[in-house]
Amino acid sequence: MSLDIRSSELKSPIDVAEYLFRRLHEVGVRGVHGVPGDYNLVALDYVEKAGLNWVGNCNELNAGYAADGYARVKGIAAIVTTFGVGELSAINALAGAYSEYVPVVHIVGTPSTLSQKSGMLLHHTLGNGNFEVFADMSRNVSCATAKLNDPHDAATLIDHAIRECLAQSRPVYITLPTDMVEKKIEGERLKTPIDLKHPTNDPQKEDYVVDVILKSLHAAKNPIILVDACAQRHKVLAEVHELIEKSQLPTFVSPMGKGAVNETLPTYGGVYAGDGSNRGVRERVEASDLVLTIGSVKSDFNTAGFTYRVSQLSTIDFHSTYIRVRYSEYPGVRMHGVLRKVIDRMGKLNVEPGPAPTNEISKEDGEMAQGQVITHDWLWPRVGQWMQPEDIVITETGTANFGIWETKFPKDVLALSQVLWGSIGYSVGACQGAALAAKETGNRRTILFVGDGSFELTAQEVSTMIRHDLKPIIFVIVNEGYTIERYIHGMDASYNDIQTWKYKDLVSVFGADPEKSKTYTVKTKQEAEDLFRDSNFAAAKHLQFVELYMPKKDAPKALKLTAEANAELNAKE
Amino acid sequence: MSLDIRSSELKSPIDVAEYLFRRLHEVGVRGVHGVPGDYNLVALDYVEKAGLNWVGNCNELNAGYAADGYARVKGIAAIVTTFGVGELSAINALAGAYSEYVPVVHIVGTPSTLSQKSGMLLHHTLGNGNFEVFADMSRNVSCATAKLNDPHDAATLIDHAIRECLAQSRPVYITLPTDMVEKKIEGERLKTPIDLKHPTNDPQKEDYVVDVILKSLHAAKNPIILVDACAQRHKVLAEVHELIEKSQLPTFVSPMGKGAVNETLPTYGGVYAGDGSNRGVRERVEASDLVLTIGSVKSDFNTAGFTYRVSQLSTIDFHSTYIRVRYSEYPGVRMHGVLRKVIDRMGKLNVEPGPAPTNEISKEDGEMAQGQVITHDWLWPRVGQWMQPEDIVITETGTANFGIWETKFPKDVLALSQVLWGSIGYSVGACQGAALAAKETGNRRTILFVGDGSFELTAQEVSTMIRHDLKPIIFVIVNEGYTIERYIHGMDASYNDIQTWKYKDLVSVFGADPEKSKTYTVKTKQEAEDLFRDSNFAAAKHLQFVELYMPKKDAPKALKLTAEANAELNAKE
Ligand SMILES: Cc1ncc(C[n+]2csc(CCOP(=O)(O)OP(=O)(O)O)c2C)c(N)n1
Ligand SMILES: Cc1ncc(C[n+]2csc(CCOP(=O)(O)OP(=O)(O)O)c2C)c(N)n1
Ligand SMILES: [Mg+2]
Ligand SMILES: [Mg+2]
Repeated sequence: MSLDIRSSELKSPIDVAEYLFRRLHEVGVRGVHGVPGDYNLVALDYVEKAGLNWVGNCNELNAGYAADGYARVKGIAAIVTTFGVGELSAINALAGAYSEYVPVVHIVGTPSTLSQKSGMLLHHTLGNGNFEVFADMSRNVSCATAKLNDPHDAATLIDHAIRECLAQSRPVYITLPTDMVEKKIEGERLKTPIDLKHPTNDPQKEDYVVDVILKSLHAAKNPIILVDACAQRHKVLAEVHELIEKSQLPTFVSPMGKGAVNETLPTYGGVYAGDGSNRGVRERVEASDLVLTIGSVKSDFNTAGFTYRVSQLSTIDFHSTYIRVRYSEYPGVRMHGVLRKVIDRMGKLNVEPGPAPTNEISKEDGEMAQGQVITHDWLWPRVGQWMQPEDIVITETGTANFGIWETKFPKDVLALSQVLWGSIGYSVGACQGAALAAKETGNRRTILFVGDGSFELTAQEVSTMIRHDLKPIIFVIVNEGYTIERYIHGMDASYNDIQTWKYKDLVSVFGADPEKSKTYTVKTKQEAEDLFRDSNFAAAKHLQFVELYMPKKDAPKALKLTAEANAELNAKE
Repeated sequence: MSLDIRSSELKSPIDVAEYLFRRLHEVGVRGVHGVPGDYNLVALDYVEKAGLNWVGNCNELNAGYAADGYARVKGIAAIVTTFGVGELSAINALAGAYSEYVPVVHIVGTPSTLSQKSGMLLHHTLGNGNFEVFADMSRNVSCATAKLNDPHDAATLIDHAIRECLAQSRPVYITLPTDMVEKKIEGERLKTPIDLKHPTNDPQKEDYVVDVILKSLHAAKNPIILVDACAQRHKVLAEVHELIEKSQLPTFVSPMGKGAVNETLPTYGGVYAGDGSNRGVRERVEASDLVLTIGSVKSDFNTAGFTYRVSQLSTIDFHSTYIRVRYSEYPGVRMHGVLRKVIDRMGKLNVEPGPAPTNEISKEDGEMAQGQVITHDWLWPRVGQWMQPEDIVITETGTANFGIWETKFPKDVLALSQVLWGSIGYSVGACQGAALAAKETGNRRTILFVGDGSFELTAQEVSTMIRHDLKPIIFVIVNEGYTIERYIHGMDASYNDIQTWKYKDLVSVFGADPEKSKTYTVKTKQEAEDLFRDSNFAAAKHLQFVELYMPKKDAPKALKLTAEANAELNAKE
């Protein structure tokens, strides 16, 4: 049983829930996602007190996706759910954040410590008196777990969880029993911010590794840089940008690294993903005698079905917990310090330029006369022409996630997607979170590309965007179902069909003020052109929703390739 | 690695996936719920081959709820999801089925055994090469797990899983790797149906228990019967009905037992849930010197916050795995055989009649002049007058789940709700599953009562109902948010508000043919009266959707009571 701390012992007594939310405020959280439930209601009273805003999502899975999107923009997010029913509804989103290294604090309101101890037969339990089972499940997708069962260690556990969340850039799981919410703890602690500094590398070891790297780098004839997801997630982009600018080396990104580098630099070469890459890109990357990969994740969809063709013999991998030079591993060395020294000590390198991608649309596809139907080959470069610096662009697993490879971004674009976890419906929730984060931090546009099939999983979160007066531009690709799946198996199978909705009418159903929202139907290249040239549309003054009709069986080249490799792998024995 | 069975060894070779789906057909499954994914696509080709229909839900959580609803009507259901993202999205629904004893077969398409063995970095993984983690999570909410990694034992594992699913009336979890789908196994096995017989009780032990029970029963002055959830779930209703008719004892149901007994019998007394019961019911039950409980589940919401006031000293509990007479327990004795003998040997008992519930609306509430606003006190008895024999009625956690206590059912009504697990949004998915089951088995009406807040979690499943031409009658209680939560905590807190939608417009957005659907807005008692008297409405010839406006702060009496007890328990230390 949790013993109370005598209030007289405390200099500045503060309730556990307030402590928790004030710590979240300290690390940058402003909007708190989630859904109420009777085990978290009292805790929710503290959200506003701590200067935070309650989002109130339509359901917990969407809330989890939204928290993920918010965290990718703001650096951290929080979601509150209720015991059992709420937390399990969200667990897939948290697994996604775990898989993709996104720092989300998951707070679960649980029955009181007393009810748990006495094993009461409460609602939201499995009826077996086991109150640990859900926490045990979440442990698999959390880098730290904190059960706030006692006021004596609550503050320590909270601080630890938040620190780990940021240090490992992964979800943490915190349980807050109903009887702990208002327990008093020491508020003086809040005067000292949580220590978020990473321990630095052992300098001698670091110097050693830097030497090895520099030797390889100077010996290389045509080195390149390949930036991947974990460069963003482990927040090493400042170093990466300096490396690119100082070295002048041709720079490529993986699909998951899209948006990590400045694509307007002359050294930017495009997206590399094995056979899924454009020819010039593939040739240049695969001809390189030294590839510096930063935060690489060689998953199937990030490499167009494992067709990544760069030998480990000509690779240096920079990671957040180790460095690998060819086959030599240096565990316990964090890339940040190493990159810093490499930049400082680099000197002059051999530079052999790479390709220069553009958003020019190939003649063939560009001809309006070639048919008015909107094709992927036409769409994605055209989107690149239309985009603006600082845009946040979210793409869903499906044709959009592969199409975006062909979009060359303006400066400072942030791209969100889930190439590794790949849970469809993610992008709609993530768009809500990202748009809220954008609203909090200035005036970035938030642009979503989602397939009709994926949209149907989580469509109600558009309601939350409306409720909070967010101003995303939502493109739903209407192509009669699961096109990506058709390319994997069952091109004409009915299980890849969906019920087609009047998608844009949802905006009104969800209660949008017609003055504060606008919807569009775009079925031809000409209509798309008109929209992309419309300055009111571009200004994104309110929520905008576009139905973008595309052919059922059209897909980006990279998708076709990946799907084929995938189908083969599935069948292989 | 899985060794192939040489086809020459097999008399009637059959593919693993076909075997699985034909077994499901054998035990009564016709509609298969779920969502495609690349790890299950090839398996889905076998659904139709086995004489089953693919439902194709909007998302996996809804599919899980739908499977639960389908199983409660048809006795068993199946859901197919894809590895990681799909199965975790559904896990909350499976946990609900586990908690509430609903038999659902969960089939997960996984990466090939080869990919798993080599720990490939595939999409839908946590990126750590662990392919067991999701199965380990599901194990907590499954009564059996079958990993079909080898054709040699695939059939045995499938048969075992299906048998356990039915025997324990709980979910089972089956993984089907992509490379196993088309592996050949012996089809001759299918000629022998799975043995679903329960082992009978040891006759000597059974006779002993029956004697003890009969002694108590004859000594009792005013015994009663109290029927609860597990009487339905463990399929002992035939015996229960006989017991009621032969004994002529006053019979009550718990909230979770609602619908289990014939409420038109003169011996039916109403819903007992402690302080939440109507006065006559409470007095009669609590005055009884012997209560025969059948399949009882004494959870908080099933007992109006643990206010169940029947002493164990005057109780005989019948369960599927044991019998308890006062404090004497008889483990390993299944109620079915015991009830059978009790009925046969019962003789004449003392019968002191109980109350007789009606659907009469109290004068006060009945007066139209008392205001046209629709109140809970008025609504639920009125619903009882309107209902028909064999209706399936689904109520959501919230005001509806408590209101339905006041509805006296016609004969053979089946009531679905989730009083123990209580995951909101459940009822919308369950309605799809139940309506499909109803369509398969004849012409029962399927009627849903769901709160506006709950509806928003899973609203898209109305699209699936439309797609399959189902004909439910959907009542959305529009009362400006989470009324039940207001009564627990935060009566006027903004976190209990929701974004109000134009709910009924969804029917058109989801693509319903206006000829094959109808929507209604009901804001007054008079409008409700008109609707309940409309024979076209009652005929349920197509999907009907009713917005039922009720006051924000009105709630059934039993809810207010339970909410209060709940808030107290949450705060208690
Ligand atoms: C939660 C979840 N369920 C199922 C899948 C399997 N899946 C991957 S992509 C896809 C279809 C996406 O269709 P759509 O959004 O219409 O994209 P497009 O047609 O543009 O390819 C499906 C069902 C998944 N990745 N995640
Ligand atoms: C998945 C899930 N999330 C949250 C809750 C907590 N909860 C229980 S009832 C409820 C509100 C239901 O509101 P509504 O459906 O409008 O019902 P009513 O207003 O009729 O009470 C909530 C949020 C829950 N039970 N399940
Ligand atoms: Mg599509
Ligand atoms: Mg409501």
